[in-house]
Amino acid sequence: MGLELGELAVRFGCALRGDPTLRVDHVAPLGAADPAALSFLANARMVRELARTRAGAVVLEEAAAPGCPVSALISDNPHALFARIAALLHPPSPPLPGVHATASVASDARVDASAEIGAFALIGRGAHIGPRCRIGPGCVVGEGVHIGADTRLVARVTLLPGVRVAERVLIHPGAVIGADGFGFARERAQWVKVPQVGGVRIDEDVEIGANSTVDRGAIEDTILEAGVKLDNLVQIGHNVHVGAHTAIAGCTGISGSTHIGARCMIGGGVGVAGHIQICDDVVIAGRTTVSGSIRNPGTYASLWSAEPLARWKRIVAGLKLASRRAPGGKGQRDDE
Amino acid sequence: MGLELGELAVRFGCALRGDPTLRVDHVAPLGAADPAALSFLANARMVRELARTRAGAVVLEEAAAPGCPVSALISDNPHALFARIAALLHPPSPPLPGVHATASVASDARVDASAEIGAFALIGRGAHIGPRCRIGPGCVVGEGVHIGADTRLVARVTLLPGVRVAERVLIHPGAVIGADGFGFARERAQWVKVPQVGGVRIDEDVEIGANSTVDRGAIEDTILEAGVKLDNLVQIGHNVHVGAHTAIAGCTGISGSTHIGARCMIGGGVGVAGHIQICDDVVIAGRTTVSGSIRNPGTYASLWSAEPLARWKRIVAGLKLASRRAPGGKGQRDDE
Amino acid sequence: MGLELGELAVRFGCALRGDPTLRVDHVAPLGAADPAALSFLANARMVRELARTRAGAVVLEEAAAPGCPVSALISDNPHALFARIAALLHPPSPPLPGVHATASVASDARVDASAEIGAFALIGRGAHIGPRCRIGPGCVVGEGVHIGADTRLVARVTLLPGVRVAERVLIHPGAVIGADGFGFARERAQWVKVPQVGGVRIDEDVEIGANSTVDRGAIEDTILEAGVKLDNLVQIGHNVHVGAHTAIAGCTGISGSTHIGARCMIGGGVGVAGHIQICDDVVIAGRTTVSGSIRNPGTYASLWSAEPLARWKRIVAGLKLASRRAPGGKGQRDDE
Repeated sequence: MGLELGELAVRFGCALRGDPTLRVDHVAPLGAADPAALSFLANARMVRELARTRAGAVVLEEAAAPGCPVSALISDNPHALFARIAALLHPPSPPLPGVHATASVASDARVDASAEIGAFALIGRGAHIGPRCRIGPGCVVGEGVHIGADTRLVARVTLLPGVRVAERVLIHPGAVIGADGFGFARERAQWVKVPQVGGVRIDEDVEIGANSTVDRGAIEDTILEAGVKLDNLVQIGHNVHVGAHTAIAGCTGISGSTHIGARCMIGGGVGVAGHIQICDDVVIAGRTTVSGSIRNPGTYASLWSAEPLARWKRIVAGLKLASRRAPGGKGQRDDE
Repeated sequence: MGLELGELAVRFGCALRGDPTLRVDHVAPLGAADPAALSFLANARMVRELARTRAGAVVLEEAAAPGCPVSALISDNPHALFARIAALLHPPSPPLPGVHATASVASDARVDASAEIGAFALIGRGAHIGPRCRIGPGCVVGEGVHIGADTRLVARVTLLPGVRVAERVLIHPGAVIGADGFGFARERAQWVKVPQVGGVRIDEDVEIGANSTVDRGAIEDTILEAGVKLDNLVQIGHNVHVGAHTAIAGCTGISGSTHIGARCMIGGGVGVAGHIQICDDVVIAGRTTVSGSIRNPGTYASLWSAEPLARWKRIVAGLKLASRRAPGGKGQRDDE
Repeated sequence: MGLELGELAVRFGCALRGDPTLRVDHVAPLGAADPAALSFLANARMVRELARTRAGAVVLEEAAAPGCPVSALISDNPHALFARIAALLHPPSPPLPGVHATASVASDARVDASAEIGAFALIGRGAHIGPRCRIGPGCVVGEGVHIGADTRLVARVTLLPGVRVAERVLIHPGAVIGADGFGFARERAQWVKVPQVGGVRIDEDVEIGANSTVDRGAIEDTILEAGVKLDNLVQIGHNVHVGAHTAIAGCTGISGSTHIGARCMIGGGVGVAGHIQICDDVVIAGRTTVSGSIRNPGTYASLWSAEPLARWKRIVAGLKLASRRAPGGKGQRDDE
């Protein structure tokens, strides 16, 4: 059982200090690990826990190795090394090929024989489910939807017609891909719906969190490029284009027709306006509002941090006063 | 197939420059349109794309017509005209009358013969589904729920008991209508649940986005009046009343017992406090917080836009200092 | 039918002014109540409605009793008393024991005979459903999930493997418990998924709102202690620990590995950073951002309230100018 440390060191090309024949069979935090566990030094603040750990081995940086009382696997990027070993120790369940007795598969849908279709899943007319896909319970795969190999819809995922999903995509429960964008024309103070006739293209290795929503394009497609990661409760508006390997944390909303570059990191609770451009390699701090285009890589922010209420009230009141005396504000009443 | 430009001009009472016998059969953006496509000049910035378009015809304003190299349909409100023509070219699928073999319909539910009930849909006891409704796969229609004619629940929509939905309503996947409001009384540092016994009333022509939530009233009903449009991931608290033709963009939350007037436009990521009044014809900029009642029509905002991180830190630090020197803040320590 | 006021006064140990034999059989707001209704004076502003009410009886504080034209039940905590009486008048439906014909229950799942399993519900292998549970339509209960007595999943709730739910928990439609946390290691500008192998522990008397998401732990469990109340569209990240009787309003996100104390009240639209500590008895105003740990009980805020747009623009512009002249900002250009 388990994996030998020596085998792991060879496989991942990392240094090992300790017993190469020792085996680990699961991951655990430093403080709760037993000798069969592999653990991980996430940051320097945990050095005390490291000193007391009973783990079989710990993944860490070279600099931290002297403080490690047990075997150590040493890496320049211990987080990534830990992730890869953890994936060996805790592999995802393989598909159980076949269609659950309660599922409903259209007669002309093409479901690969190696795919798993769960209970109460609906596979619409003309849909295509690739090899080794896992379509979990309660999923709705719309008419003509194409899903590439090794993709998993965990449960209760909805893919509406016009959605194409590539290989190795992982979509968590409750996500809705391809609902109508929020497109209306105003006419005499009422709204005329603009038909949303674009689709959604999701490239390989994308992950989409629980209850997130990715709208179909108004005319052209909404696109998530390869390796994009969306957390839970993220909203992606119609015609948005998210570049490869960009990650977006929870509760963030991207308004329609905005183009986000590659390798961006967008924090949680962020709001991004519509019809703007964000270039590659931009980091947006959590809870920030992006109202205009960003043309230079770097980190951007606009959040205010919590203060005790009385102090916050003074800040707000004082600043509003100050703003009246500022150039351009001088002499003006604030309430005209 | 397709529609003749002359026929469209007559039908919508707009001017046509070009060949009235030319036919269009789909919509496309200016840059990707072929001669069978109808396109649309959304704004003046796209005038270069207009000059190069290969569309069969373009919907635009009079002022833009001279720059149009192809046929033009001219309107004071090109967005609305485009929306109406697009709806003719891309009509929603009609219902396929009947109940899917896997659906579960209570024996005393009244389902109009022209309605479509999808796979794994549940129609509860005493529910009423009107003519030409489309109840999509995985929807849950609770006991006694009444749904008017031509309403569509796209998929996996939940309507709990006590919900009434009028005609021509469109609800996107994952929306939950009629869950309990967040009502608790505090007693010795614990919470006592206040039973939520009101319902939800959704009037005609409302549209509700994917994974949005509209809570039932605590005692009286939560109400969305005619023509209200909610985007995705919008939260409407218990007893909220949203006036006719108000639109609310994604990720916005309206706290309980708030009354929003008619024809308001509320941006994305907005938060509105509970127990307040917002009058008719108010525009709230995206990412704004509304803490108190708004009694005058107009546009309101409270968002800060992203800055490079170093600059943002200076703004925050400088302003906190400034607030101590402001009248009322003078001499006070900020941390008492 | 209904309950006698005298019986209620005895049962709840409160004073009664009026006729002890009078019966009420439902709750209603002051303004819409009839003589069979019990109503409630929520706050002093409603004193005019109190004077005109036609309710059979009103729950209120001693001080308000003289202004009550009908029978009065008097309490130091009228909200809680009202909640308890309302629960008697409007009891939740009891479970209808048994498994719906369309449900799918694994052969080795243990479902108590007194539990109700709804249409299209899936009970996975080795799952355990306790006495008097109500598992509503379309719910997915994953492999090995344990659910305690008297718990209700209203509809379309997803509990993934590794989730344990205690007694008297109430989870509203669309909630997803136990999806993977947002855990990735960065390696050469791409993301390596960190397997999420922890679970979720939900203690007794927790309530979780519609379409909220509670992620499984990365290694250890995500925990909601007894009596925690989450509103709709709330996101709880991996490894978060929420202390007993803390309430979190809608559209709030708690980032991973944060520890929130007991009896906190967190408003709507709040964002809490990851890896921080919030002590017991903290109140966070709605729309506030919590970036660092909070070590003292009290109320905290960082929200800006909406202003008319022109005024808001002046505030922002003036303050940015002011920040340049502040010590530390002096002479510095804001855009280097």
